[in-house]
Amino acid sequence: MSKLWGGRFAKNTDVMVEEFTSSISFDSRMYRQDIAGSIAHAKMLASCGIISQEDATLIIDGLQGILADIEAGNFSFEVSLEDIHMNIEKRLTERIGAAGGRLHTARSRNDQVALDTHMYVREQVGEVAKLLFDLEQAVLDTASKYPDVIMPGYTHLQRAQPILFSHHMLAYFFMFERDFRRLGGVWESADIMPLGAGALAGTTFPIDREQVARELNFGRIYENSLDAVSDRDYILEFLAFASILMMHLSRLSEEIILWSSTEFSFIELDDAHCTGSSIMPQKKNPDVAELVRGKTGRVFGHLMAMLTVAKGLPLAYNKDLQEDKEGLFDTIDTVKFSLTVYAAMLRGTKVNAGAMRQALKTDFSNATDMADYLVKKGLPFRQAHEVVGKCVAYCLNEHKTLTDLTLTEFKEFSPLFAADILEAISVETCVAARNSLGGTSPTQVGQTIDIAKSVMEKQQKRLDMYTKIKL
Amino acid sequence: MSKLWGGRFAKNTDVMVEEFTSSISFDSRMYRQDIAGSIAHAKMLASCGIISQEDATLIIDGLQGILADIEAGNFSFEVSLEDIHMNIEKRLTERIGAAGGRLHTARSRNDQVALDTHMYVREQVGEVAKLLFDLEQAVLDTASKYPDVIMPGYTHLQRAQPILFSHHMLAYFFMFERDFRRLGGVWESADIMPLGAGALAGTTFPIDREQVARELNFGRIYENSLDAVSDRDYILEFLAFASILMMHLSRLSEEIILWSSTEFSFIELDDAHCTGSSIMPQKKNPDVAELVRGKTGRVFGHLMAMLTVAKGLPLAYNKDLQEDKEGLFDTIDTVKFSLTVYAAMLRGTKVNAGAMRQALKTDFSNATDMADYLVKKGLPFRQAHEVVGKCVAYCLNEHKTLTDLTLTEFKEFSPLFAADILEAISVETCVAARNSLGGTSPTQVGQTIDIAKSVMEKQQKRLDMYTKIKL
Amino acid sequence: MSKLWGGRFAKNTDVMVEEFTSSISFDSRMYRQDIAGSIAHAKMLASCGIISQEDATLIIDGLQGILADIEAGNFSFEVSLEDIHMNIEKRLTERIGAAGGRLHTARSRNDQVALDTHMYVREQVGEVAKLLFDLEQAVLDTASKYPDVIMPGYTHLQRAQPILFSHHMLAYFFMFERDFRRLGGVWESADIMPLGAGALAGTTFPIDREQVARELNFGRIYENSLDAVSDRDYILEFLAFASILMMHLSRLSEEIILWSSTEFSFIELDDAHCTGSSIMPQKKNPDVAELVRGKTGRVFGHLMAMLTVAKGLPLAYNKDLQEDKEGLFDTIDTVKFSLTVYAAMLRGTKVNAGAMRQALKTDFSNATDMADYLVKKGLPFRQAHEVVGKCVAYCLNEHKTLTDLTLTEFKEFSPLFAADILEAISVETCVAARNSLGGTSPTQVGQTIDIAKSVMEKQQKRLDMYTKIKL
Amino acid sequence: MSKLWGGRFAKNTDVMVEEFTSSISFDSRMYRQDIAGSIAHAKMLASCGIISQEDATLIIDGLQGILADIEAGNFSFEVSLEDIHMNIEKRLTERIGAAGGRLHTARSRNDQVALDTHMYVREQVGEVAKLLFDLEQAVLDTASKYPDVIMPGYTHLQRAQPILFSHHMLAYFFMFERDFRRLGGVWESADIMPLGAGALAGTTFPIDREQVARELNFGRIYENSLDAVSDRDYILEFLAFASILMMHLSRLSEEIILWSSTEFSFIELDDAHCTGSSIMPQKKNPDVAELVRGKTGRVFGHLMAMLTVAKGLPLAYNKDLQEDKEGLFDTIDTVKFSLTVYAAMLRGTKVNAGAMRQALKTDFSNATDMADYLVKKGLPFRQAHEVVGKCVAYCLNEHKTLTDLTLTEFKEFSPLFAADILEAISVETCVAARNSLGGTSPTQVGQTIDIAKSVMEKQQKRLDMYTKIKL
Repeated sequence: MSKLWGGRFAKNTDVMVEEFTSSISFDSRMYRQDIAGSIAHAKMLASCGIISQEDATLIIDGLQGILADIEAGNFSFEVSLEDIHMNIEKRLTERIGAAGGRLHTARSRNDQVALDTHMYVREQVGEVAKLLFDLEQAVLDTASKYPDVIMPGYTHLQRAQPILFSHHMLAYFFMFERDFRRLGGVWESADIMPLGAGALAGTTFPIDREQVARELNFGRIYENSLDAVSDRDYILEFLAFASILMMHLSRLSEEIILWSSTEFSFIELDDAHCTGSSIMPQKKNPDVAELVRGKTGRVFGHLMAMLTVAKGLPLAYNKDLQEDKEGLFDTIDTVKFSLTVYAAMLRGTKVNAGAMRQALKTDFSNATDMADYLVKKGLPFRQAHEVVGKCVAYCLNEHKTLTDLTLTEFKEFSPLFAADILEAISVETCVAARNSLGGTSPTQVGQTIDIAKSVMEKQQKRLDMYTKIKL
Repeated sequence: MSKLWGGRFAKNTDVMVEEFTSSISFDSRMYRQDIAGSIAHAKMLASCGIISQEDATLIIDGLQGILADIEAGNFSFEVSLEDIHMNIEKRLTERIGAAGGRLHTARSRNDQVALDTHMYVREQVGEVAKLLFDLEQAVLDTASKYPDVIMPGYTHLQRAQPILFSHHMLAYFFMFERDFRRLGGVWESADIMPLGAGALAGTTFPIDREQVARELNFGRIYENSLDAVSDRDYILEFLAFASILMMHLSRLSEEIILWSSTEFSFIELDDAHCTGSSIMPQKKNPDVAELVRGKTGRVFGHLMAMLTVAKGLPLAYNKDLQEDKEGLFDTIDTVKFSLTVYAAMLRGTKVNAGAMRQALKTDFSNATDMADYLVKKGLPFRQAHEVVGKCVAYCLNEHKTLTDLTLTEFKEFSPLFAADILEAISVETCVAARNSLGGTSPTQVGQTIDIAKSVMEKQQKRLDMYTKIKL
Repeated sequence: MSKLWGGRFAKNTDVMVEEFTSSISFDSRMYRQDIAGSIAHAKMLASCGIISQEDATLIIDGLQGILADIEAGNFSFEVSLEDIHMNIEKRLTERIGAAGGRLHTARSRNDQVALDTHMYVREQVGEVAKLLFDLEQAVLDTASKYPDVIMPGYTHLQRAQPILFSHHMLAYFFMFERDFRRLGGVWESADIMPLGAGALAGTTFPIDREQVARELNFGRIYENSLDAVSDRDYILEFLAFASILMMHLSRLSEEIILWSSTEFSFIELDDAHCTGSSIMPQKKNPDVAELVRGKTGRVFGHLMAMLTVAKGLPLAYNKDLQEDKEGLFDTIDTVKFSLTVYAAMLRGTKVNAGAMRQALKTDFSNATDMADYLVKKGLPFRQAHEVVGKCVAYCLNEHKTLTDLTLTEFKEFSPLFAADILEAISVETCVAARNSLGGTSPTQVGQTIDIAKSVMEKQQKRLDMYTKIKL
Repeated sequence: MSKLWGGRFAKNTDVMVEEFTSSISFDSRMYRQDIAGSIAHAKMLASCGIISQEDATLIIDGLQGILADIEAGNFSFEVSLEDIHMNIEKRLTERIGAAGGRLHTARSRNDQVALDTHMYVREQVGEVAKLLFDLEQAVLDTASKYPDVIMPGYTHLQRAQPILFSHHMLAYFFMFERDFRRLGGVWESADIMPLGAGALAGTTFPIDREQVARELNFGRIYENSLDAVSDRDYILEFLAFASILMMHLSRLSEEIILWSSTEFSFIELDDAHCTGSSIMPQKKNPDVAELVRGKTGRVFGHLMAMLTVAKGLPLAYNKDLQEDKEGLFDTIDTVKFSLTVYAAMLRGTKVNAGAMRQALKTDFSNATDMADYLVKKGLPFRQAHEVVGKCVAYCLNEHKTLTDLTLTEFKEFSPLFAADILEAISVETCVAARNSLGGTSPTQVGQTIDIAKSVMEKQQKRLDMYTKIKL
């Protein structure tokens, strides 16, 4: 098929090269952005007297007809037309004749594709933010639903100190809160209008970039045309945001997988969120959590891919940059799906408070409290730590726990122990006593839940801002 | 839809979870491997008396019918059936009834998917090897086509010493030769038969794994069933091979892009392998080279993704491992396409010997030869280097090149210079004199081309071995 | 050596394991932060009545003595004491006796190391910001120094359109401006106070975290103790910031390397920023630019490393997280060094305006302007593009440029051409005519320089805020 | 300090640039290789009559003196001399005068550094192979030590089927066996001699590269001089090998961490390989396993870094390639340390057979055997799976295990059940019955141990070959 740029070429493009260099298979998902951008461009060209109002009307009607065709499934994309931009422009010219050829005045594919991708990312930031917000809600609901459940807290996957289950869940709330904030940074970087940069140097036509920016609801305009067509920072920022978010989800996944094991048995996932085995009839596998943990790799990979692509490229546009989209799109899809299934999975999960409590009966997670008890009786912390360490060693030998010891036994380790020691190291005391700001006591956790709620109220406003923009 | 593993479940899988965990959208490309593996399994089950010969015949005929249906486009894959294995097994049971239910005896999806992927990778190693071999041929042909063309050799992108163009091309031949060798390592790791490992521990049925291995032309059998279902080394090795190969192609791409620039003008790509600009009528862009350089990032990303997926997974199979395929398949497609277009592009490229020669007239790439000249007259190398450095500084100031200097001028820098200096630093002399083994002299390059040819003869045998296996 | 945690252990740590698990070789660089944090902690413990004022005074004096010793080089760090925290605490106890053992009351190494690292990153954000600001200044100075120099602008490394050299430089200004903004995001994430989280669950002592935060100038406090000891987002954000910054520097490096080549000859680096060859006397290599381009890989690698480390870790602290520091520290050093040498190198670079101008005489970078000329005479853009494409093909055949054509020749391609065509496609016209917002015309570039200056005024305030915090 | 290449330069190198571009801080570790390579070069120069025998003797004696100085700690490396090569050459000239200046005849730093690094990697391949071999031995010893211990086998971290502990350990043996094989590939790629390539194009002196190769025990010689100085494949292959090895270790680490948890309690690590907590007296943390899992990230990062460095570099040497060493050296150190501590840790680990056995009493890991039982009585596998699935659901409801059911209960699910069912699903039967090749039965595991032993005998020969080369 003859190319829109073929004037100086003596030979047609090799069919295999056409297929290799074409992007229509993936950039067609930006058809709405492409058409909205072209309509804004045509309106501006007419306002500025660069094309006639009649041509602009023809163009806009033609583009709206194409939009309707695409959404109705009546548009066939051609690989030989390379990309979404050429596919639409060619069809436009078929529909409206010569006026179609005027649409590309004062514009290049370089700034056009930058515009489309900016708009697409901005829209997707809004969609991801909504799903992230919903996951925060699911986490908060889960934390609120079990205010009294105590579980072992871990470091190094060894029992460390008793904590509230709700306290544990809230740790994830604050990770997602930071993700939400980072997503705001992506928005800032995406919300810059590149159109009017031309191929690289601006245009000789008296265009009005501010009008286009207003029309398309952009907050800022690129100040330098070379930068406008070369910048992929917003994509990298999205991928970095997504990598950190997936890392958080991979941590929660690890815990859900551990807690679903027979050994822990701390939770029970809903049958609807698990799958079985083709050969082992008893299996109920936490596939969703495993798959999200696995998909973390895919997102890290896309980040690394895009960093590699951009490394060492001279200004301005180079074809390498066409590689910016597939990884981005796959990351968007992966993140959206992961957030959605995660919120549903959390909402369907039952907490097995009995198993958690049973676990605490047989461990030494109250040892720090025993040391603190001695400190409060005057022993320097380091000596108290030593005394309790020896107690633990003794218990392990005797197959006892600390609460099994008699006062006589206690006193052999330190004369400071008195009858109140047992109360001081009970699980309830241990939890209630960690009442420092942000600690695991019911008082603190209650306050943290209130803080989380007020954080979400502020996020709601941001969310409204993201999603009010309609094209 | 009811699941083949649903016995213990009280609830159906959530539709969204089905879609999230399903792999049919990408693993359907292994349908030939899946069917060939099932046929071999069924034959073996009958030989060992585990199923009847009648059942085996029904199964094999049924599977061949399904294969024909898929290849004719008459098979619709269902997301709710999760993967290629369940899709085919379900259809088989619909076609042949109860006997279909016996196929999965002594087998799990864990070893089945491992088998399919091993066979698929082994086949693709053969296809990639063929294309790599063809690219080597294209490189060798290009080197052989221009035996006398001299160009500036570069280090730090600064002119260094004159070299033969064919010498430069041959450097890439040896990179690809190492890639071919590494591909042999991937073959070794892929050519191990996992079937019979069951879910993780082997099977209670008296199977014959060696028969299956023979049937499917495998060289080795996994010695440990847990390893058989958990091992993804061969995939990682393929991705590491592909990353190094793409790195090589990215280097050649960089050079093709440089050489196609107006500043260098060392080569002219065929119109059929370039594209133009939507706005700048004069543009002829080396898109293929740029895109291959860009796609390097994608392949590095897939390697990083798979390493991340596998990191920290306990034995044996975990759902995370389902993430092993999409990146692998995309890497295979990317590598195959890149090799194919590259061989075509090289074959279509014209070398502009005149521009290369012109470049050499105005530079100092003969400075080392001038130093060597002094060394041969008795000066220690370090002093000779110093003398020539000063000559170069003098020339830069005077806007001259070394060959512009008079003997009087030469002698001001060292009395060792004599009338034979000009001959000693002519471009032809510089090239011919680098006659050390593997150097750039025509003699050496001629010998290297012979070596390259005999390397390819050996590779041809390896290639025959890879591609003789038909399923 | 006996451990501060050795009570329950029957055996000493293996010496090799001590060395393997020790972090003192790299975390000793945080000694100032560790001591400042401990002083703030001791003050707070005394204010809250948890330790006596006498003990606090002893501790604070002791710590200041240790600080003086370290800065005087009179402190020997012990591998067997694992890390900076234990090294200092042990020495403190040696100096002041039992009171030293009270310092660790209501604190764990988990929240202590988090505190130190937060403070360290916050301080380094300030230092990096200063250097980034200085590089922006160097870029802006370079752009301002050559207001009239015209060079070819490139896409696909093919000549595209003439641009101002200053316009090209300003593209980098805006990249660095975004980097500066992202650094602000890192600051936000680092400026959260973790101390008081204890091992994971808070503490049973009546501490005052707000006092510590005020003392150490923190803007926020972690709301959840598990999150406080597990969060490494701020490190990942720093690494992501640094990766994007290095990517920008790698692009500028590529251009500096290209422009320093004999083929381009657009700039001349100062001898002080180049190195020579041990064998080739004429070589002057742009090592700094190459090395910065190379070091991009190192920073990407550290980002990938940390993402991998954090993937799939259950809460709360795991020893894997000790791996957070070496890559971070190396990234900080790399970024600081790269920014410093880059600013110096730019300031030392001479622009060769003549070579740039010469290049423009022999190319077709005015072809778009010729098409725009026809559009302004009424031809739809697509047809104008086709006409000019054919002109270019004609010139290539005839070894001419567009300005070599006679009016008769022009008119053979389109009757719309008139005598004013030559003026319309002169290099000066091409540049001046791209007067759209952000375009390359001298008017626009002048305005952009003003914008850049006012951006830097705002950044200066931010910088003051970063650097006013002294420990 | 004046440079050995300073002739053409008007200005000295900036001190900061010297520090930035210098590699002496890390390449000094290759001093033995550098000296051995120079001695071989000097011998060859004399044999070929390029330098006199007297000069060669002076050079060789001088170099041996420098070697002795370095090993005695009497050599101070200078940053201003850039690298190990210039440091040694400068000192040589100070010691022996003008003859020192003749050593660099027919050689460049480009081929010299390539030679040193090849020799260093080859040596380290041998050292890593020894440690890997020892780890294999530790794995094999551990497997052999507990021939009868049965544990639950897992998929998706859910109990799947009972397996022998030794079977589980052997899965790791075969991973390491593949690592050992891949290391052989690294050896092949490192064992190629680059010296004689000169800066990039060979040399004008009549050198004998084969003599140098023999002297330094190289198996092959680079066939192309550009390739010889540009090739970093062997480094990338080492990093890819190390990444896969560390991935294997990260999987074993994950299991050791799980098994050391209170919930699993399957093993007890030696006190000497664990550390405690500064605050929680009861803690005994599996730090070594955690740290190795964490260090996996570092090695992946180094691989990614080097791939990024090499991407898009034109031939031949570019300064970016100086970045090839630090990541390589750190990877070597990390891998060697990880292998060493791992072998020690495994040897010190106690297996808690009782806890493993107890776990099996309360789960459904015999469900597959129950299905197989029905298949052997004639039921198609899919129906048997369904029957057992329902049995499991019934037991979960009734808080029973399968072996708790009465025959009457069994028969309600299928009339095929008979009195022999309990024997058929006992843990011992389950294990013994998986007697397929590579399965978990004691017979199979015994045979696999024999195979492993014979694998190690073959590896021993390879190891001897690696380590016989002494410089």
